[in-house]
Formats: sequence, C-alpha cells, structure tokens
Amino acid sequence: MTIYKNSQNKKINKRFDDKIIQLSHGDGGIKTGELITNLLLGYFGNEVLNKLEDSAVISCSGHKIAYTTDSFVVDPIFFPGGDIGKLSICGTINDLVTTGCVPTALSLSFIIEEGFTVPDFKKILSSIKNTINDNELRIVTGDTKVVGKGSADKIFINTSGIGIINKNIELSPRRIKAGDKILINGGIAEHGIAILGSRKEFNFKSSIKSDCAPLSSLVTDMLSVSKKIHALRDVTRGGLASILFEMSGASGHSINIYENEIPIKKEVLGICQFLGLDPLYIANEGKMVVFVDNKDTDRVLLAMKKNEYGKDSRIIGEVTEKYEKSDTGKKSDKGNVILITRLGTIRTLDLQYCEQLPRIC
Amino acid sequence: MTIYKNSQNKKINKRFDDKIIQLSHGDGGIKTGELITNLLLGYFGNEVLNKLEDSAVISCSGHKIAYTTDSFVVDPIFFPGGDIGKLSICGTINDLVTTGCVPTALSLSFIIEEGFTVPDFKKILSSIKNTINDNELRIVTGDTKVVGKGSADKIFINTSGIGIINKNIELSPRRIKAGDKILINGGIAEHGIAILGSRKEFNFKSSIKSDCAPLSSLVTDMLSVSKKIHALRDVTRGGLASILFEMSGASGHSINIYENEIPIKKEVLGICQFLGLDPLYIANEGKMVVFVDNKDTDRVLLAMKKNEYGKDSRIIGEVTEKYEKSDTGKKSDKGNVILITRLGTIRTLDLQYCEQLPRIC
Repeated sequence: MTIYKNSQNKKINKRFDDKIIQLSHGDGGIKTGELITNLLLGYFGNEVLNKLEDSAVISCSGHKIAYTTDSFVVDPIFFPGGDIGKLSICGTINDLVTTGCVPTALSLSFIIEEGFTVPDFKKILSSIKNTINDNELRIVTGDTKVVGKGSADKIFINTSGIGIINKNIELSPRRIKAGDKILINGGIAEHGIAILGSRKEFNFKSSIKSDCAPLSSLVTDMLSVSKKIHALRDVTRGGLASILFEMSGASGHSINIYENEIPIKKEVLGICQFLGLDPLYIANEGKMVVFVDNKDTDRVLLAMKKNEYGKDSRIIGEVTEKYEKSDTGKKSDKGNVILITRLGTIRTLDLQYCEQLPRIC
Repeated sequence: MTIYKNSQNKKINKRFDDKIIQLSHGDGGIKTGELITNLLLGYFGNEVLNKLEDSAVISCSGHKIAYTTDSFVVDPIFFPGGDIGKLSICGTINDLVTTGCVPTALSLSFIIEEGFTVPDFKKILSSIKNTINDNELRIVTGDTKVVGKGSADKIFINTSGIGIINKNIELSPRRIKAGDKILINGGIAEHGIAILGSRKEFNFKSSIKSDCAPLSSLVTDMLSVSKKIHALRDVTRGGLASILFEMSGASGHSINIYENEIPIKKEVLGICQFLGLDPLYIANEGKMVVFVDNKDTDRVLLAMKKNEYGKDSRIIGEVTEKYEKSDTGKKSDKGNVILITRLGTIRTLDLQYCEQLPRIC
C-alpha cells in the first residue's frame, strides 16, 4: 500500500461525498487520499492500517512481520525498461524493504482477459521468474481468474508479500527528526515518462526507460553502514512531491527540498516541460527516499552510490522543524514541504488535485 | 489458492500448447489444471507452491504461517446470499483455516472501473466490514486502482491473508489414510446456482441463496473435539468432484463417495437437472470437506452439526486404499474417485474439460 499518509489527521470519519468512482480516485493525488482516508479508513481503520505505510508491520509470536499488497493495471503491459510482471514483483519488494525486512514469500494472482495470447503471458511469466530469481524470492501461493472478452484489459496482476524484520530495526516516519537529511537513489519521473511515451495517443519518441527495479540490495547496503536511517519510502504513484508530503504529515515535520539537487535526466525534464507535466508528481518504480541522521549521511550516500541502483544518489533536502498541528495556523497539519527552486524562490508542495497519468502502475 | 492438486505427478514441465487464454483456463477444470501445472509451476515451482494447497504453509523463525491469496471477479457482484465483498473475505478465511490456523491479518485490494457508483461501493465495503468484524479480523494493508470505463467490469477484489498455525496441528493430504471418513458441512452447489439464477441471460427464478460463509468457527469446533482430523479442503470452483479428485491425487489414495449421502437441496438438484448441469461440479463458497480417522468420525460430525454452518453435515464417503502410481496401470496417478450412484452403479469422477460457469467467484 502506498499513498496519502496522513496520520496527523485523526478526523478519518469525514464525509466522502463523491457519487461515482473517477480515475482520479486511483492516481495517488488528493482524490485518492480522500477515498482512502475519508471512506476506506472509516470502514476498516485500525492502528496498523491507519498508518498507511508502504507495508504494514504486525507482530506475530514475538516477531515483526512486514506485509503488503498491490494490484497492477499498468497500460501498456510492455514498456521500455519493463513490463507488468517485473513491475508487480519490484513494487512488492520495494514496499516490503521500506520496513528494513528481508522479504520471505510472495503471492501472485492473475486476472486475465479471455483471448489474451499465451506468448504474451509467457513473456510476463519469464519476467516475473527472472525478477524473483535475481532476488532469491519464492512465490508460495497464487490464483488465476479469467474474465470474458471486454471485461478486463488484457491482464491485471496482484502481488502481496511478507518479510521478517530484524528486532533491532525500526524504520518509521515517527523516527524522523529535525536535521535529518533526505536522499534519493537517482533520477525521478522516468517510469511515468516511459509509460507515456509507449502509449499510442502520445506522439513522441524518447530513449527514456522505466526505472522499474528491485531495491532490496540497496536497502541492505544502506542498513549495513548505518543504524541511524530513520525512514524509507518507495516513491511511486503521485511522484516525489506526494511522497514527501505524506512523510511530512506522518512525521509532523517540515521538509525543505532543493530543486537544483533533485536528479532528473535532461530528456525527462524536456518532455515534462513540453507536455506541461510536473516531474515532481510523475511516478517512479525504482526510487527510494531515505531519511537519515545528518551524522551518517555521507556513509549512507556512499553505500548507495556503490549499489547498481544507486549510482546517481543525491542529498536532495533536509527535515527542518517539527510543526504545530493546527487547522488555522501557518503550518498545515497535513505536512509542509518547501521546494527551493532553481531561481531561489520558494514553492509549497501539496497533493495534486487531478490525475496526470491514469494506469501508471 | 485452490484447484488441481496433483502432487503425485512430478512431470510439471509438460508442454502447454494453447495459444490463447480461454475462459476454461479459469474455471477450475482440466484446462485450469493444465495452466497451473504445465505452465505456472514450470516457471515458479518450488516445494511450497508445488503442493497447491488452499493456503501455503511456510516456516518463519520457528513458527508455521499460513498464507493465501485469491482474486474475485464474480458476476454479478450482488447475488442472493452475498456479494463480491463478503465472498472475498469468506474465501480467504476458508482457505486459511484449512491449515487449522488462526487467521491473523488480511490484505484488501480493489480494481475499480471508472464510473462505478459510490453507493454500490459502500454496500460492498459494509459487507466486508461486517464479515471481518464477525470474525474478529483486521485488514492491515490494501491498495486501490481505478481503470478507465470499459477496461474492467465494475469491480474486482483481491484478498490475501496470513494466519498462525499451532505447532501441534498438521492438516495435509499427506496425512490421509485408508479408512478415513469424508464429511461435508451441508448442501452442495448452492453458490453456483444462486449466481446462475441472478444472471440476466438465465430466465429462471429460485429461492436458492449462495452458501457464502466464513468457516473459521466450524474448523475451530472440529479441531477442539479431535486430534485425528487429517485434512480439510475448501470446496469452491470446480465443485465437490474436482476437489475430491485433487485430494485423491494429493494423498495417493482412492476415494468412494455415495451419491445418496451427498446433501443437496431438492430445488438445487431440480435446477441442475433442468439445465443439464452436474451439481458435483458446481461451485460452493461455504463448504468444507473433512478427512477424519474413522474412530473420531462421530464426535467430529456432532461438533459440525452444532455449528451454525454445519447443521446439515453428513458423512459422504471414505478413503478406500492407497493406489500405485502408474501411467499404464488401472489406477490413475491423478487420483481415483468413485461415485456410487443412487442406482448402485459406479461412476469414476474426473476433472471436467469445459467450464460450466465462468466468473463464479
């Protein structure tokens, strides 16, 4: 699970007045947040679910278990840098490892449209197999459903996963404190732009590939050099800005981010500018934001840069201060993320209202 | 996970020659079996997955954890006796409790079609909430995706679940032995007929409701009176016959079933006869088959009858003998289930080739 962390806001029984489900309820922006916080938590809220972290952490006979699920509906199912199969496994691995756990077992469930070709299905299966083998993982349970032609679009995949968390490891937004540095492991917005470029309705060609990648080794490498990593978050739907907004809300701390320091490929930036898209809100599938005590920043950055998925790691900002919870005061109770732009001006980042790209994952 | 248990057959790398995915690949019959055994296990097979039980059992720091997943695509989403929400929670509970575990936590993931109405969504959410509350369960992680109009049919739900298995409990087809009695907790084929009757294309009215029910209390009651329950199996897609066929294959034992003893409502039987459907292959969603040592049969049956979901429990057959694994001999290596008919004749039950009812769950 991802999107719209807002543990500061206890009023989860607010009304949900929408009459129909729209694409924006699934895009990771403000409408998704309303659906989750005002509707779903009203029905199912409990102390674990309310945290809305990438993975739930549950205790089980004295052990801490990480547990997560995601459904994947990406369109198209094959795209530069990956496919729905690789995406579904990487997504679940990345959600799990934000807890610092060792992923133990995965589930895999297909909903397939009648008439889907077996060669395409085999390509997806190969991709899943390669990803789980590379990460020494096992699928232990699964399910397959087939629906009639026109009742689904080719193939949807659900994965869930569980992992064991070492007793000494606790990663949580609650551990974030003023002075923490914020790191990211490479260029943003590549997944979203790769998907966009592979859609028929968009008439542009680019060399941009999805950053879709499993980040378990990156997290292991980071944790092996520092005990002062406070929190990790997988940066997917909603992009870097939405995730920082959620982390600000969850930690009760303000964040400063420096636009100059955010890694982004020139071509990605160019396409975003051409299409009028804000790369800060475009999805990634192989990016992790890291909140680390200032003292350990250099060693964590070094460990990240040595990893194959962290070569372009950068310090992009810092946690500035604890803010007061107030509906009326200057500081929002939903998080306060300040972007210092290239021109030196200040821009407050918030959740976006409308979807930029449906079916991005 | 359910369907097509065939651990006797080690040749899982047999060819899968179909060119397109058909509805029959998802119906729980022989085509589903081929997809799972010849294709999916070829890619992902491992010692846990190969067992293809309702729930995987994995060991985790000295504990046994049950883990299962299912996607639900039932059409229509509201039907007599339940809806897709109740079905998704009951299905996962029932898969979990076949291991004898105490269900601990669930995941819940939605794929929703743009334009789905919020009142219908709320009905489903209420139904899920009631079912988890009745069973003292929690949803700890979830996901919501929305796809464009026409890219899915209203709503699909994936649930997964984990549970802790007491060290002293081991339920597995491997424990089945000759002489075991086979019990079921009530009338068959009600879910399938209820779904059929609620589809527009079928022009009949009936009072039959889906048997959709959570069977955790039933299993708890059974396990509290006997240590000699050898195996449980949730009887869903593919119906009683397919599940017995799988259990025969998984245990390496032949099974005799008495048609006269199989509970079935008169109206269900009448509709099946009218439509030319075999109730033995029609789906259930609140039925469990129980393999129990002959010595404990009476006390287990009594415990079942006392439970609200077991009032019509019956002994329907017995395990007769261990059979030899041979491709050429009289005994099939894929299981051997004999139905003694009302007329006293003998019929060998096998997996069915074609789907009777797509999107039954």
